[in-house]
Amino acid sequence: MPKTKVAQFGISVDGYGAGHSQSLKNPLGVGGRALLDWAFATRTFQRLHGNEGGTTGIDEDFLARAFENIGAWIIGRNMFGPVRGPWLDESWKGWWGDNPPYHTPVFVLTHHARAPLTMSGDTTFHFVTDGIQDAVERATAFAGGKDIRIGGGIATVQQFPRTGLIDELHLAISPVLLGSGESFFSSVDMLKLGYRCPQHASSPHATHIVLSRNG
Amino acid sequence: MPKTKVAQFGISVDGYGAGHSQSLKNPLGVGGRALLDWAFATRTFQRLHGNEGGTTGIDEDFLARAFENIGAWIIGRNMFGPVRGPWLDESWKGWWGDNPPYHTPVFVLTHHARAPLTMSGDTTFHFVTDGIQDAVERATAFAGGKDIRIGGGIATVQQFPRTGLIDELHLAISPVLLGSGESFFSSVDMLKLGYRCPQHASSPHATHIVLSRNG
Repeated sequence: MPKTKVAQFGISVDGYGAGHSQSLKNPLGVGGRALLDWAFATRTFQRLHGNEGGTTGIDEDFLARAFENIGAWIIGRNMFGPVRGPWLDESWKGWWGDNPPYHTPVFVLTHHARAPLTMSGDTTFHFVTDGIQDAVERATAFAGGKDIRIGGGIATVQQFPRTGLIDELHLAISPVLLGSGESFFSSVDMLKLGYRCPQHASSPHATHIVLSRNG
Repeated sequence: MPKTKVAQFGISVDGYGAGHSQSLKNPLGVGGRALLDWAFATRTFQRLHGNEGGTTGIDEDFLARAFENIGAWIIGRNMFGPVRGPWLDESWKGWWGDNPPYHTPVFVLTHHARAPLTMSGDTTFHFVTDGIQDAVERATAFAGGKDIRIGGGIATVQQFPRTGLIDELHLAISPVLLGSGESFFSSVDMLKLGYRCPQHASSPHATHIVLSRNG
């Protein structure tokens, strides 16, 4: 059965998935980039961005798995870009340049309709205005039996477990404090929603936690 | 310089230091005991409770360090026992039997005065009604130049960094979900208070995090 999953979701020791003051310069908020240092260093991340080298081991294993067998993505509008409100024009095409690292259809949750946007490398952004249930249905139709990966931000990710639409979450706790920002667990009781923690492993850079409803 | 420190402070993946519904049967709330499974297994813990054996390695190293060079303890009333309001009599003498594992003076923060209580093994409970500053001063006077360790519960621990009275915190994140309960970080911005994370290490059972103002 294909899964709907969150992966490579960085949180700080104090539970924040992004720092305060998210901006064009700091899409993960002040200090938030440190939540993904473990990921940036890996071989898979480096290859996705056209580079050689990168680390192997536990961090690489989890990052490689995060990109395996993905047939479609669903992301929040803020993960697509900093534009708020109606799309004034079509000039913003994501944070990732001409060839985004998705290589699948990407469903962007938004309140504002926009025509699909096809990029190089098989990435097409579709803008979904009918909510997460509709996004999952459309992603499933495009995913060809593969898994659907849910991207950030936190407010987007939090909507899914509440509605039973996520099978698995991979979180990576980095040994940093953010102090304030967006807290993933403060508004969602994952235990009550049926999730358990069947798998965990630590590298020197992150503690990887897998939450699953089938764990 | 002697330090004032928190150690062996268990939190769940979702940030809770105790589960909901704390009671005589579940002093750490429902599911909360799992936050200290890593500690109960260690050689130091087993020896403190008169047993042979126990694990060695990262968990043992952190637990042994938690008990090293402690000259006095400060704990919250709920860590001392489940009695609320005025002390009706002196029959409650702590969770730990005749020979508590402290072997130092223990200052219990409470709103209700009570005479000191001397137990076997050099543990004396003093009941402090004038707040944490007074508790630290009295503990310092008794500690003979050694460190002061702050025990739980969470509400007690949270008071100290806010007032600049903690030098170091050792947290241990266990790979479990509690879903709800008392969250340590939700009401205290450790970054803003000047703490950093200079040390971390993981065993298969817990991720140990040291926060320090000198890190």
